[in-house]
Amino acid sequence: MSENITIKDIARICGVGVSTVSRAINDDPGINEKTKERILETVRKFRYVPNTSARNLKMTESNTIALIVCGVGNTFFTSMYDDFQNELEKNGYDFLLHSVDNDVNIPAEALRLSKEKRLKGIVFLGGWINPNSKSLLNVNVPYVFCTVSHTIEGPHAPCPTVGIDDIAASKRMVDYLCDMGHKKIAIIAGVEGDMAVAGGRLLGYRKSLEEHGIEVDEDLVFHMKKDIDEFTVENGYVVTKELIASKKEFTAVYCISDLTAIGAYRAIYDAGLKIPDDISVVGFDGIELGDYMNPRITTMVQPRHEMALESVRILLKLISQEEGIADTVFPTELLTRDSVKKIG
Amino acid sequence: MSENITIKDIARICGVGVSTVSRAINDDPGINEKTKERILETVRKFRYVPNTSARNLKMTESNTIALIVCGVGNTFFTSMYDDFQNELEKNGYDFLLHSVDNDVNIPAEALRLSKEKRLKGIVFLGGWINPNSKSLLNVNVPYVFCTVSHTIEGPHAPCPTVGIDDIAASKRMVDYLCDMGHKKIAIIAGVEGDMAVAGGRLLGYRKSLEEHGIEVDEDLVFHMKKDIDEFTVENGYVVTKELIASKKEFTAVYCISDLTAIGAYRAIYDAGLKIPDDISVVGFDGIELGDYMNPRITTMVQPRHEMALESVRILLKLISQEEGIADTVFPTELLTRDSVKKIG
Repeated sequence: MSENITIKDIARICGVGVSTVSRAINDDPGINEKTKERILETVRKFRYVPNTSARNLKMTESNTIALIVCGVGNTFFTSMYDDFQNELEKNGYDFLLHSVDNDVNIPAEALRLSKEKRLKGIVFLGGWINPNSKSLLNVNVPYVFCTVSHTIEGPHAPCPTVGIDDIAASKRMVDYLCDMGHKKIAIIAGVEGDMAVAGGRLLGYRKSLEEHGIEVDEDLVFHMKKDIDEFTVENGYVVTKELIASKKEFTAVYCISDLTAIGAYRAIYDAGLKIPDDISVVGFDGIELGDYMNPRITTMVQPRHEMALESVRILLKLISQEEGIADTVFPTELLTRDSVKKIG
Repeated sequence: MSENITIKDIARICGVGVSTVSRAINDDPGINEKTKERILETVRKFRYVPNTSARNLKMTESNTIALIVCGVGNTFFTSMYDDFQNELEKNGYDFLLHSVDNDVNIPAEALRLSKEKRLKGIVFLGGWINPNSKSLLNVNVPYVFCTVSHTIEGPHAPCPTVGIDDIAASKRMVDYLCDMGHKKIAIIAGVEGDMAVAGGRLLGYRKSLEEHGIEVDEDLVFHMKKDIDEFTVENGYVVTKELIASKKEFTAVYCISDLTAIGAYRAIYDAGLKIPDDISVVGFDGIELGDYMNPRITTMVQPRHEMALESVRILLKLISQEEGIADTVFPTELLTRDSVKKIG
């Protein structure tokens, strides 16, 4: 909203002159306390950013880079915050972590933040943003997408991405299940229509089955619920409950995140079934917690610390205009632990 | 460091005059590009904050409140970030999340941040800060401690705290184990010397045993490792391994956080033992994840969302000078799930 509101609007709304608004903002002692309060409240309410700040721009903008996170409590991301903060501070930048709820608001929120905070740059972490979204073009500072890659959507967005090849990594995960003899493999995929990493992983699942001559049984493709945060333990739990209740036969569940797999574990325990004796489960991401579950979760490890550092490196290069737009694809690693049984 | 560095120091270090530094900072076009770069690099390196910013103070400081978190990836805290951000933004403030590593740097870091960011206020979340620390007095903006209470250290610090009664809540947890027939109860306490919440919880453990006529066996008091982040799954795992290796007899383990309990679970599984058949385990905090473990973790629930909102409320009152210093103590709730066996 700040981009539309001018000092004249604030003055009009408050029924005072422009100079009075200016005095309120600058805390001039010559202004009535109540009037000042009323004006400042309006300024806050409409998120008015004084244009006059522009003259202090160089001094006040200088140092802040924001990390805009969708899924702020997601363990996969939280383990990267210190990487971002340390790497940015090492390079003389201030670090701002900002949580956003869902993709719809992300470009607008980024725009607001970049104006209000005079940001130098943005790293977007997670979430389901279409990197080709035109509204992002309005964000007038360099930005990088981390853990969001261009695997599905067509043309490249005018920004670099740092991620993995979700399709290939996901395919490898399902290849492993097939190699272990599984043919009836259910998937807990992302919310329906998610064309970001979740979409890539679903595609990898389909490709693997196809290559193994197994027809995809659409009744074994389950999507996370839209009304629960994506990739969470809760979503994995609720959806796996449904999968089990469907009475469809399956020997393995592929959860597209480790947290989702932890939820699936619980649903499987609840049904009185054993992992991996009755049902094999695999996750994705390689979060620390997976190593503490019983049984330890077999997963696909993303090099998250390296991805965080690389995102910062690329952003800083963009800011100093030393580097152009490119996608960085990190390798993943299949980590076989104890949650898959060889069958057949 | 910024508080000691002046524009004169920067000029001396760069071998230029004060006015040249000033021109570099203000991006005056009349300055040589290379000289400017060199000066700005020095400014960044020494985290020099231009004093001249003071004149723009009212305009640039206006809206930011920082959440300084010790243990940024701790699930108990991450589930509160959105509460803080939403409540602050609802009140017209910007939200800045800042991670700190350990108590040693917290007051200095808070001071640096409050100067650089022109903060309006600070909420400290977690960590092992002595709220009576004199160095905190240097922080010249209002601040509140959240999840850190004055249960152990003597006189009240000049700031409000929002927390629980760690001693009483912890005692209640151990009372429950005693009521379930346990007499040999090990504790995974905080790092040695932690006099914050961890210290309070250890004291509650001692009080409960004493009241139940059970002599505290110091060989069953285990402390988290100093070289691993406190309250983490990893710390719980490593220390419970040691507990089991000690061959001391015990029927229950009280972990002072749920994450620690998840680590303890793994160490117990590793030893081929069953929970709760062989060993009962309880946690503390009431994080969502505890409900997904197998068996579900019996715990003491802290009303973390309410605590976050109350911290913001109190801080805003402090800022507007409507309220004085007070400690807010929230009630906790014993949540009995499936990880404790009745014995004897």
